[in-house]
Amino acid sequence: MPVYLIGAGPGDPELITLKAINILKKADVIIYDRLANEEILEYAKDAKLIYVGKKAGEHYKSQGEINQIIVNEAKDKNNSVIVRLKGGDPFVFGRGGEEILDLIEEDISFEIIPGVTSAIGVPTTIGLPVTHRAIATSFTIVTGHEDPTKDKKQVKWDYTADTIIILMGIGQIKENTTEMMKYRDPKTPACVIENGTLPNEKIIFGTLEDIADKDIHTPAILIIGNVIDVFKKIKKFKDNN
Amino acid sequence: MPVYLIGAGPGDPELITLKAINILKKADVIIYDRLANEEILEYAKDAKLIYVGKKAGEHYKSQGEINQIIVNEAKDKNNSVIVRLKGGDPFVFGRGGEEILDLIEEDISFEIIPGVTSAIGVPTTIGLPVTHRAIATSFTIVTGHEDPTKDKKQVKWDYTADTIIILMGIGQIKENTTEMMKYRDPKTPACVIENGTLPNEKIIFGTLEDIADKDIHTPAILIIGNVIDVFKKIKKFKDNN
Repeated sequence: MPVYLIGAGPGDPELITLKAINILKKADVIIYDRLANEEILEYAKDAKLIYVGKKAGEHYKSQGEINQIIVNEAKDKNNSVIVRLKGGDPFVFGRGGEEILDLIEEDISFEIIPGVTSAIGVPTTIGLPVTHRAIATSFTIVTGHEDPTKDKKQVKWDYTADTIIILMGIGQIKENTTEMMKYRDPKTPACVIENGTLPNEKIIFGTLEDIADKDIHTPAILIIGNVIDVFKKIKKFKDNN
Repeated sequence: MPVYLIGAGPGDPELITLKAINILKKADVIIYDRLANEEILEYAKDAKLIYVGKKAGEHYKSQGEINQIIVNEAKDKNNSVIVRLKGGDPFVFGRGGEEILDLIEEDISFEIIPGVTSAIGVPTTIGLPVTHRAIATSFTIVTGHEDPTKDKKQVKWDYTADTIIILMGIGQIKENTTEMMKYRDPKTPACVIENGTLPNEKIIFGTLEDIADKDIHTPAILIIGNVIDVFKKIKKFKDNN
């Protein structure tokens, strides 16, 4: 004890916070998944590394199994610093809240270290302002992939914010953009960023009505809104400089 | 040249990214404002520091004047690394987009380094999950203080996301919460965090209908949504441990 729930940032290993690095350096065990870049693990010295993420073609651990691993490591008297490392920020679709509630059940103390969420860190890095004077004074961040075990669909896609940022939304991009067109002009600019902040980053432009038909590969985030017109001007300059 | 537009994070000087620190260390000039914590400037060695933020009772610099200072420093041949440092993330209500467009007009190159926005970093640090399974699959971040020079009000407060996070909204908290009650249950849990991630942090609970009547001091962020009930459980455990 305690367990440190840490956000690793959007991908670029330099986009982790100093606070996260300082804790990783003294970690006894690091339980991690879905890291865009495993270079971050190099900050850890002799820590035991436990991967609990998805592997192609293999069974992967359920949230219940992951929570049990965290609890077991926290109860191991040989461990003083236990790190649960997640991509982005632990509370932005990271199920961090559920992991914390399980720790509370077991009377295990914890600290939470925020990270740069890919929902903001990716557009900012490429020069896409999610807010911009007179164009966007609000933005909504939403998951495109709802928990399929839930009783009823919670996401209605009638968001009124100026900019919409969709994480984990490529698998259901056609259904989601079709729903959004009930509430928003189909010609609204849209943009997909694959592998944001990483060397293989790729940007794909379209509109709300045609972005789903583009050739898109995960991991990627989808952004909808008129700020993309500002971004096009910024990107044109960057590409020429 | 170039100009680095850098996000300093939500306040705690350890919540800045490694990438930001590495650039601050080699900066020739740093143009900054509204930093929650000036310790961050200690990473800079012999950089010239130019404060362009608000000072109580004094005239402060207009956005146009600030942009002109950045352009002048970038054109000064003695400067190789020019930093424009902002609290939070440069593109989350930081007017970073406007500053970049002015740099483009002057043919000055730039890089943008994201930061942990206080809109997410503050709730995450205190243990308030802005998303949570079956309670919140979306959240909206909005400014509570619209540009008063604008022709018509853009913010309508009819946001349908599960969690609403309002930055710079204390001055107009009564008007804004009254508007939100047209669209959302007045009994929805609400929470204000003053001086988030700093030693003098303070948390104030209420509901959408009564939070405006509490004794609140800026800087603070306002959060509305049922995730606050999850946070109350997490906070109770933390307070006892």
